Amino acid sequence: MTQAQIQHDKHLLGTKGLSAGELESILDRARYWEQHPVKKTNQLQGKFVANMFFENSTRTRFSFEVAEKRLGAEVLNFAAAVSSVQKGESIYDTVRTLESMGIDAGVIRLKPNGLLAELASKIKVPLINAGDGNNEHPTQALLDLYTIREQFGEFRGLHVAIVGDVQHSRVARSNLWALKTLGARVSFCAPPGMQAPELAEHAPYVTIDEALTADVVMMLRVQLERHEGTLLSSAAEYRASYGMTVERAGMLKPHAIIMHPAPVNRGVEIDDELVESPKSKIFRQMSNGVPIRMAIIERALS
Amino acid sequence: MTQAQIQHDKHLLGTKGLSAGELESILDRARYWEQHPVKKTNQLQGKFVANMFFENSTRTRFSFEVAEKRLGAEVLNFAAAVSSVQKGESIYDTVRTLESMGIDAGVIRLKPNGLLAELASKIKVPLINAGDGNNEHPTQALLDLYTIREQFGEFRGLHVAIVGDVQHSRVARSNLWALKTLGARVSFCAPPGMQAPELAEHAPYVTIDEALTADVVMMLRVQLERHEGTLLSSAAEYRASYGMTVERAGMLKPHAIIMHPAPVNRGVEIDDELVESPKSKIFRQMSNGVPIRMAIIERALS
Amino acid sequence: MTQAQIQHDKHLLGTKGLSAGELESILDRARYWEQHPVKKTNQLQGKFVANMFFENSTRTRFSFEVAEKRLGAEVLNFAAAVSSVQKGESIYDTVRTLESMGIDAGVIRLKPNGLLAELASKIKVPLINAGDGNNEHPTQALLDLYTIREQFGEFRGLHVAIVGDVQHSRVARSNLWALKTLGARVSFCAPPGMQAPELAEHAPYVTIDEALTADVVMMLRVQLERHEGTLLSSAAEYRASYGMTVERAGMLKPHAIIMHPAPVNRGVEIDDELVESPKSKIFRQMSNGVPIRMAIIERALS
Repeated sequence: MTQAQIQHDKHLLGTKGLSAGELESILDRARYWEQHPVKKTNQLQGKFVANMFFENSTRTRFSFEVAEKRLGAEVLNFAAAVSSVQKGESIYDTVRTLESMGIDAGVIRLKPNGLLAELASKIKVPLINAGDGNNEHPTQALLDLYTIREQFGEFRGLHVAIVGDVQHSRVARSNLWALKTLGARVSFCAPPGMQAPELAEHAPYVTIDEALTADVVMMLRVQLERHEGTLLSSAAEYRASYGMTVERAGMLKPHAIIMHPAPVNRGVEIDDELVESPKSKIFRQMSNGVPIRMAIIERALS
Repeated sequence: MTQAQIQHDKHLLGTKGLSAGELESILDRARYWEQHPVKKTNQLQGKFVANMFFENSTRTRFSFEVAEKRLGAEVLNFAAAVSSVQKGESIYDTVRTLESMGIDAGVIRLKPNGLLAELASKIKVPLINAGDGNNEHPTQALLDLYTIREQFGEFRGLHVAIVGDVQHSRVARSNLWALKTLGARVSFCAPPGMQAPELAEHAPYVTIDEALTADVVMMLRVQLERHEGTLLSSAAEYRASYGMTVERAGMLKPHAIIMHPAPVNRGVEIDDELVESPKSKIFRQMSNGVPIRMAIIERALS
Repeated sequence: MTQAQIQHDKHLLGTKGLSAGELESILDRARYWEQHPVKKTNQLQGKFVANMFFENSTRTRFSFEVAEKRLGAEVLNFAAAVSSVQKGESIYDTVRTLESMGIDAGVIRLKPNGLLAELASKIKVPLINAGDGNNEHPTQALLDLYTIREQFGEFRGLHVAIVGDVQHSRVARSNLWALKTLGARVSFCAPPGMQAPELAEHAPYVTIDEALTADVVMMLRVQLERHEGTLLSSAAEYRASYGMTVERAGMLKPHAIIMHPAPVNRGVEIDDELVESPKSKIFRQMSNGVPIRMAIIERALS
């Protein structure tokens, strides 16, 4: 195995292609960190990790930062909004610059589809995908898997329904690949304009009523930004047709859980009263994000 | 005492309701930290503190950050301007998210009046008010108290005049409650449009000439943003009527001091030449902010 | 020597006035840090360094931050875009504020020419110039010197050609002063509207063809922002007249190297294919920035 290949194995670009064993091993290691009695360790002392967010994010960046600091790494935060990307500097040059300065790993979120794979072929330090266009968001999927396993113990035989803007969702894709690898049954539920036809061979599109029969109902964030102008009417319509309303929540199986990658548009994808109800695992997902990311960063740097 | 109550005691929402003993004990502990020979300690090693600024601030955020790092805590900085609050995420969801990720305490500044009290009733980790609408700014008041005590030794018998936009000032309110609890006499001096009628029962409104007879003359920042359009004329007018001019400074008692929470509008609330003159404690206030905030964060996490 | 003078010696405002011995000693210490086997040391444990960027910058701020953290210092980051400088707070008041809060050194980048020298006369903690208007950018020049010495071993007898917008370039000026002190021969090559007549007595202006005979050809960044409207035509024109094209690179001496302070406008100052070609030291310059800044921060705080 060449050095380039070894390095490449340390990237985490997506869940597609990860084996069941690799997925389970990340979940197991996250469990180790979740149960770890000491909040801040020296595991990665002297390692430098750069969080490079070319697309804004509060929760994902914070989750990574907490994970990195719990591992004892040095953290460098880069947000495009306050950077010289504005001055025409390309994403590649920024990442290459940080690599030149001696970072040991990079966490990266970016908009242009396909660019991350290109970067990963050129950059030697491990890159961790923190959101890649409409393509993948593997750490989100892994924390979702962790939350599901925590609840149900295993994946085989589970039915997971993913509801919402599947077309633009990297969360949907990363969950799809990982859940199928682990033996779960996945179905999508999406309005006509939000379906991704190319995914239909991997998971069927079902009605919202069928989605409500699942063990896990995972609501996706509606990108309200994409529907400006028609916002108010479509938000209400969206809720009526695809939202997890109190009424629909009442139709779920007793053991079923509701998930959402957050941030939630309360009253659109999910009713306000449900967000912190017992069936909702939304804030539990966020808690689980920290040990998952600890496991992933540790894997990148080991 | 329930767990909820214990937690609640660790919040610092305001100076209103704090006893003289509690106030003095914070000042004493700040004195301990001011005299501490080691700049960075391990006092809060492994604790995670999030600075959540939903309203911009340089000096307050830095002051907290220095305090947190001197205590050995891990620091997470959140500024709304670069966050997904823009994406419609509510302040509550952000704070709840950070709590879910395992922070041990949160420092928070926000604009909407009343929201902080609501947050504190729902969030389990201690919250420290770093500026709450027009309501309170207790750490500013505590560093002001520290500066006054440093100068005069005690509060009983002191006359503190607070001059400026009392109506919109959280600094004025936090100082009012704390100074009265500690036995000082407070008076306000404000232009008609900047008075807060509901505070008149706690402290009388006096003329600028009467204010100049005080032991401590505390100038408030004029929110120039609130008076756009009329700015130049009103800035000059404001100075003429309520500013601490060189001429007015000459009328102060020999032992009197000038204070200001900063940032100063030089030449408006106070003449340029006075900002670093011996009577002015403005930069001394900033120095004192660090040990005060160390004492407060330590209190929250102890 | 008074305390003020001692303090002043710890500022790094420019390369102008630094002796050959001082320059060499910084380069030597940077070499020590480059070869140091441990990435994070305790050299500056408990010291607080503030990076105060009143002008945006990704790479320079990151380079300083990596350097500071490798030395074990506590780092505070200030970027004007998210600060109360917007509220009319002056740069001086911000720096004075951070000094009051107990920082041990400040790294500062700012636009107004002349202000840094004024600040340095009033501020007691050491200030390190990270970009001062059109005046100086000494840490960039020092990392350039390091890169040149790494390549050629010495400066005496070398010919360094600096090509581009000399008029607005602090990089050009800092390199000029330092290279001349160390015995190199410097020449400038710039379009008529980008020449700085006052520098002509220190280094001759030459044609691009003469510049290509140098041992080091240092391309300057074109401030595209300054030429809005005429951008596309002038970018192509600029490249044709002054850019390091593949064709021009073929005319360089075999041992000659190409440098650029970055960020690069690919296809303007330098052709895309050349940026990571063997003759280009651009990313090597960035790597060298870290040990250089370690040496400089250490010097400021020793």
